[in-house]
Amino acid sequence: MLDLDHARSKTEALLALFDRWAPRPPVEMVPIAEAIGRVPAQDLHSRNTLPVVRASMMDGIAVVSERFRGGLPDTSRWVEGKDFVRADTGDDFDDRFDAVIPIEEVTFLPSGGLRLDDEVAVAPGACVRPSGSLIQPGDPLLVAGLPIRPCDLAALAIGGITEVPVRRRPVVAFIPTGSELVPAGTTPQRGQNVDCNSLMARHLLLEMGAVPLSLPIVKDRIEDLESALDQALPQADIVVLNGGSSKGGEDVTATMLGRRGEVLVHGIAAGPGRPMCLSMIGDKPVINLPGPVVAAFHGLDWCIRAVVSRYLGLPMLRRPQVRAVLAEDMPCPKRICFLCRLQVTRAPDGTLIAHPLPFRSVRIGLWLNANGQFVSEVGQGDHRKGDVLDVELLCGEEFIRPEGEPASPALPGEASPPPREGNDGRRHP
Amino acid sequence: MLDLDHARSKTEALLALFDRWAPRPPVEMVPIAEAIGRVPAQDLHSRNTLPVVRASMMDGIAVVSERFRGGLPDTSRWVEGKDFVRADTGDDFDDRFDAVIPIEEVTFLPSGGLRLDDEVAVAPGACVRPSGSLIQPGDPLLVAGLPIRPCDLAALAIGGITEVPVRRRPVVAFIPTGSELVPAGTTPQRGQNVDCNSLMARHLLLEMGAVPLSLPIVKDRIEDLESALDQALPQADIVVLNGGSSKGGEDVTATMLGRRGEVLVHGIAAGPGRPMCLSMIGDKPVINLPGPVVAAFHGLDWCIRAVVSRYLGLPMLRRPQVRAVLAEDMPCPKRICFLCRLQVTRAPDGTLIAHPLPFRSVRIGLWLNANGQFVSEVGQGDHRKGDVLDVELLCGEEFIRPEGEPASPALPGEASPPPREGNDGRRHP
Repeated sequence: MLDLDHARSKTEALLALFDRWAPRPPVEMVPIAEAIGRVPAQDLHSRNTLPVVRASMMDGIAVVSERFRGGLPDTSRWVEGKDFVRADTGDDFDDRFDAVIPIEEVTFLPSGGLRLDDEVAVAPGACVRPSGSLIQPGDPLLVAGLPIRPCDLAALAIGGITEVPVRRRPVVAFIPTGSELVPAGTTPQRGQNVDCNSLMARHLLLEMGAVPLSLPIVKDRIEDLESALDQALPQADIVVLNGGSSKGGEDVTATMLGRRGEVLVHGIAAGPGRPMCLSMIGDKPVINLPGPVVAAFHGLDWCIRAVVSRYLGLPMLRRPQVRAVLAEDMPCPKRICFLCRLQVTRAPDGTLIAHPLPFRSVRIGLWLNANGQFVSEVGQGDHRKGDVLDVELLCGEEFIRPEGEPASPALPGEASPPPREGNDGRRHP
Repeated sequence: MLDLDHARSKTEALLALFDRWAPRPPVEMVPIAEAIGRVPAQDLHSRNTLPVVRASMMDGIAVVSERFRGGLPDTSRWVEGKDFVRADTGDDFDDRFDAVIPIEEVTFLPSGGLRLDDEVAVAPGACVRPSGSLIQPGDPLLVAGLPIRPCDLAALAIGGITEVPVRRRPVVAFIPTGSELVPAGTTPQRGQNVDCNSLMARHLLLEMGAVPLSLPIVKDRIEDLESALDQALPQADIVVLNGGSSKGGEDVTATMLGRRGEVLVHGIAAGPGRPMCLSMIGDKPVINLPGPVVAAFHGLDWCIRAVVSRYLGLPMLRRPQVRAVLAEDMPCPKRICFLCRLQVTRAPDGTLIAHPLPFRSVRIGLWLNANGQFVSEVGQGDHRKGDVLDVELLCGEEFIRPEGEPASPALPGEASPPPREGNDGRRHP
């Protein structure tokens, strides 16, 4: 039975789940062209030697250093291909030669010979990179557990790796539930609501490194829910049921989950989205998130992200944080940890200002559009105008706009319809 | 003629280009399912009203508030469907009813009637969200110029937007040049080198918001270079020629670019990668980056990224920065701005430590794998052990490992081949 007065903290809830669920993702091989963002399952080392034999360090000519032992030889009748060859940066050259003279120190005579600058001295190996000086077999290329970035792909390519062993991505099924829901793109009729969570969840899951499996909307009927679950479980590693978690409906969902597996946590001391349910069916987590978009986002952000990270063996996300001054009081329920969305702007003196966007009073588009968020701890309660907060940034710092400047950086000539009359960003009564 | 002694700064070079090139990206419509990461060309506002008529605020029963005007009525013989209906959170209900009583205050009698708690009071509209209280036409959904994130997709879906006007992404052709190059995946023979830049560039360009056009390797012959350019220019908005920019080769490339268009900048006070060439051919930037991977990365990171951002009307990237203490001296040439790669670790007291990875002495895999970088300013010169730097992070903070701990977070059972004997991370002599 849902008891929000004695709900567990986020950490307790995750520990309860992780105590029961220690997935070991299978390893699969992917070609390096498809490896971006994947998590390597082992350290990788070079198989290549570069330069294979040697390479000139600069644009110049390759010569026999022995001929310079007694000082500058007479080069006025030297013949290209016999006494020297051209060797530009990165070029290998014939074994007869063993040193390079930079092109700046060479004058090609009209007759075919050379004049060298007086101070030229040539030691064996001068201006030559030896074999393996760029890379050699065994050199480190990348380490297990760190998602692959563009530069890491260059390392793999230089090192002669064509396929990378990576941790398989978890398939996460997302099942939107609600008799009132219509798919995004359908104009809602009386009594209907738009499923906006599926598309958001799909892209949050991709961001987390999961493979999203978006299932169709399920009506609030226990048999439909059961059959959606029957469809999802064989295909997915993790199942998210979205909606039907309000007091009446949720007991039905939780009862169903309890009948088919084990309910580990029911109700979380974290909002928006307290009426959540974490369960295991067989060896798979099945998690019920509330339907309202603010609650669904929050549940995906703290819970599903942690679950996907555990599967992939990744540490918990730490978003970049900035210190910002609260522009207005920000109410936070004291007994739970609470997600507050914020719009961060920059004052003329460089200070960052955080404008709270309370989800009950602000237009939903502004809440979703927020460029920052703050999660209050249990027991912390309200924050006051002027308080300094560590705000998680939801955009790059370059997108933080000056305080007071309109939010919309349209290019000249890009028409933006004027905002509606009387639309002050507040929810109407 | 390349003159590195009087090279322009990065800012001067970009200004010279941007003075000649003010692209206006065409606007195209994309379905919201494909809009992630795209840059909206205008502010977007809601077309929907939600709730369409109204919605219950909680699980409960809908009643006629008028019947409660004189106090609690006798509900013991009330009939569902006539005197009340069930109305759970989000539900609409028949026009005859105008208020909701929470389910906690209702007891359903076995005979079919109801008992209500004594303190129940019912005003018109109690516990009912009115039409448009979630969203109404004209409500802000997102603003022009800010790349679309998962939450923004939810806003678009709620607001009834099916297609988004976005700025077209620039097509950026990347042409690897060098007679010594073989494609990644080919084992290099004597005198050959591996093209590792194409794959890295492809994924850096995707990250920047461009459409990469990866062209095949071109030999160092002027006619091959010309024909690659002829192939790239009609398809691309921006062309990157990679390699052939060393002193001998580059004059050829620069001469060719000057013949076909106008060379704006030749040589940059920024390294690695000083021998760069920025030109315009017709209305398209054609940029020659040096071939070595460290120089190619640097040129892509500061120059091509800025060019793509200008096309898309985006501000210049500002990566998250952390303050870190230098673990060793870090030489930086004084006359240029210099890219230093670093490995950042966390000391037991929480301090971040930055270990320099000089590209001339460290194994190339470690350089590419760096989790941080620092760009010294012109005139700044060397940095010393103990100096505190603002380091750009190239990974999430959660991936910074404790000082002294092995870099590889393999999961239990994931085999990692032991590093080669005697491999100390230093380039061999």
